[in-house]
Amino acid sequence: MERVKPRTLSGFMELLPEKQTQMERIQEILRKTYSLYGFTPLDTPLIEASEVLLAKGGGETEKQIYRFTKGDADLSLRFDLTVPLAKYVALNYGQLSFPFRRYQIGKVYRGERAQRGRFREFYQADIDIIGDGELDIMNEAEIPAIIYRTFTALGLSRFKIRVNNRKVLNGFFAIMGLNDRTADIMRSIDKLDKIGEEKCRALLIEDGVPEKAANEIMSFITISGTSAEKLEALKKYEGKNEIFDLGLSELRAVTSYLPGFGVPESNFEIDLTIARGLDYYTGTVYETILIDHPEIGSVCSGGRYDNLAEYYTDKKLPGVGISIGLTRLFYILEEQGMLSDEIITAPADVLIIPMTEDISKAVETATKLREQGIRTQLYSENKKFKAKMSYADKISVPFVVFIGDDEIKEGVIKVKDMRSGEQLAEEAEAAALRIKATIDNQNRKPVIKE
Amino acid sequence: MERVKPRTLSGFMELLPEKQTQMERIQEILRKTYSLYGFTPLDTPLIEASEVLLAKGGGETEKQIYRFTKGDADLSLRFDLTVPLAKYVALNYGQLSFPFRRYQIGKVYRGERAQRGRFREFYQADIDIIGDGELDIMNEAEIPAIIYRTFTALGLSRFKIRVNNRKVLNGFFAIMGLNDRTADIMRSIDKLDKIGEEKCRALLIEDGVPEKAANEIMSFITISGTSAEKLEALKKYEGKNEIFDLGLSELRAVTSYLPGFGVPESNFEIDLTIARGLDYYTGTVYETILIDHPEIGSVCSGGRYDNLAEYYTDKKLPGVGISIGLTRLFYILEEQGMLSDEIITAPADVLIIPMTEDISKAVETATKLREQGIRTQLYSENKKFKAKMSYADKISVPFVVFIGDDEIKEGVIKVKDMRSGEQLAEEAEAAALRIKATIDNQNRKPVIKE
Repeated sequence: MERVKPRTLSGFMELLPEKQTQMERIQEILRKTYSLYGFTPLDTPLIEASEVLLAKGGGETEKQIYRFTKGDADLSLRFDLTVPLAKYVALNYGQLSFPFRRYQIGKVYRGERAQRGRFREFYQADIDIIGDGELDIMNEAEIPAIIYRTFTALGLSRFKIRVNNRKVLNGFFAIMGLNDRTADIMRSIDKLDKIGEEKCRALLIEDGVPEKAANEIMSFITISGTSAEKLEALKKYEGKNEIFDLGLSELRAVTSYLPGFGVPESNFEIDLTIARGLDYYTGTVYETILIDHPEIGSVCSGGRYDNLAEYYTDKKLPGVGISIGLTRLFYILEEQGMLSDEIITAPADVLIIPMTEDISKAVETATKLREQGIRTQLYSENKKFKAKMSYADKISVPFVVFIGDDEIKEGVIKVKDMRSGEQLAEEAEAAALRIKATIDNQNRKPVIKE
Repeated sequence: MERVKPRTLSGFMELLPEKQTQMERIQEILRKTYSLYGFTPLDTPLIEASEVLLAKGGGETEKQIYRFTKGDADLSLRFDLTVPLAKYVALNYGQLSFPFRRYQIGKVYRGERAQRGRFREFYQADIDIIGDGELDIMNEAEIPAIIYRTFTALGLSRFKIRVNNRKVLNGFFAIMGLNDRTADIMRSIDKLDKIGEEKCRALLIEDGVPEKAANEIMSFITISGTSAEKLEALKKYEGKNEIFDLGLSELRAVTSYLPGFGVPESNFEIDLTIARGLDYYTGTVYETILIDHPEIGSVCSGGRYDNLAEYYTDKKLPGVGISIGLTRLFYILEEQGMLSDEIITAPADVLIIPMTEDISKAVETATKLREQGIRTQLYSENKKFKAKMSYADKISVPFVVFIGDDEIKEGVIKVKDMRSGEQLAEEAEAAALRIKATIDNQNRKPVIKE
């Protein structure tokens, strides 16, 4: 038979079992955490009509779309989870309750140039809260709590949630008399982290911002101190512009509820340089960085927007949302050696190796263990004992159970703890309890280590 | 602004939140049950190189493929989870441990003619056990146990797992001297359920099977009784053909371990008419029907095959697997009114409605409840009380918590059980315990009702 060389497309992540188990654990934690905040799961098609998906049109994104025809249908693969959400909400408006809180963890597609750490198929893990006509600031205030709990649940502590407010920025530029330059200025500000203060100031002046204004901008975006100190420093611009005042009061609200939401000051900061793009966000914006890996950039970002579905409906649907680029995050965590090898990645908790011809007792034991919620494999291949133990080692199973004539006679099973090497002959029920306690304990360990 | 009419493509299932929650529950149960049997989760790309995905080529399937180009790459969307598994195992052969047990729950694509209950994008939920060179019969014997536990965990009891063995069928035809007619005969046998015994016999004769042989075939495939009685009746063909004898011993092995695996006789039967296609399966084959809905056909099918990845590798990789067509099953369950409305489908377990201007206490309470694993929404929109309660009703939240000045003064929260209408003022910790117990109890209810 002529054979085809098996391969996986470049830019498509396909993990080996151990890594996949870690990825599943992360997704499970995200589902659970998002659920705790009252978000309902959604699942929208991977394929949409091009006309619908590309209603907004234009931009870099459109070139990257996987677009094709099937019969006479012009189809595209989704490139994010926001456009499908907009479509979903516009389509099902009458049947949804607002504020509508949904999470979605799903694959999206972008035909980017293939390069290390860039993926063409990747998971996004999004939450959004959509209001009908209006949406209270409290929803924006709650987002840092969700980010905090999510990353904490994953096992991280050294991360910082950075928050800004677009109204504060826009209001400030209006006060400076620079509203028509906002786009250019923000582009320069966005580079601050990379190029430093001096070059950033030079860039502003180069772009035609008067030197005095450039200095004021620089002193504004580099206001330092605690959140309280930053809010205090911003007071000096208060009363000069309505947008600014509104933004500042929003930023105060978001900051003031953090203790109540359980977010420590050490995981949060007001960062006046954050803009998150030019025309989508209108209120609070969020970024999240790993303190020890600032070079990665933000691993969880989003913000408040005013019009989710303007391309589909005349209903005003303001919202706030964040997104985790899960595939990229996973790739980085793996590369940085931050995926914990302490969690169980074996396909089973117990491997039963029957030592007798008749394996009825092994079958019964497997059934008993499974009824206790213990993931159990029954090894029944006709191999030498050494090969069986080598299989147990290779899959890194935590426990091996041997059932031979002696055990059957005595009504026990022999349990080997594969880490300690200890062997114990005990009754199946007692063994099940002990094994369950050990693996439950093991499964409580975080999937990410710092 | 010019607007595009939002729509979802026909043949693509997109569920409203309550239904999606039921679907998620089902998927969660499948993941958990498959895991109990020592299967590891896999996730392969939706897109593969056409050359790889269509290595086998030909057939009805190829016409249905979503195939397209991107740049100079010829790409296709996967149409099942078996071909990607074959690719994966061939590609990663050296890094996997055999028998390799994996489950995958994922979307697949077939551009079938759109019609009610047919989907172009649908979930398959597969498990497979792949051996390296050989695979013990015990793996085939374990499959009915997995099907049994899966459907039981979903809440079903009135289902029947039907099992046959292709070697028994092939051996029998060899004994009849009809090996070269197997394909035609099986096609006729497959219609037995639909057309009845007489027409089936006529069809065989029409196809050129001698009348005597046709009678023998009919008496063979209509052997009745318990599994033990059927195995007993099959003894009369023993000793005439090696393939038959091997098949019969396999069928005996599969049947004999059922009690040990905890599968009741009432959920199992040997059905000698099952063939499951013509050239792929080589040993045990499985179908599962809902006893009260035989018209649906099999909802979980599969079997033993000898060569998973022959198009990619010269390694012999025998396996056994089953697949649930999840989207179709869900569609049918919904249509039959079999999805339970007793499970919680609300986005949250508790909705907190603050009754004061300062909502700090509500925020703190939300944080406390979430720490107890209670899914909590904080309702902070500026609406009339009636609108807030109407939101609570619409999302079917089980509990509403009111926090007003009185409650704050007394250090309690007021909890309303939305089903009973009962209101109770109690300390947050006590309320959390009570709420948790109620929802845990509720969440143990099955997602499917009969």
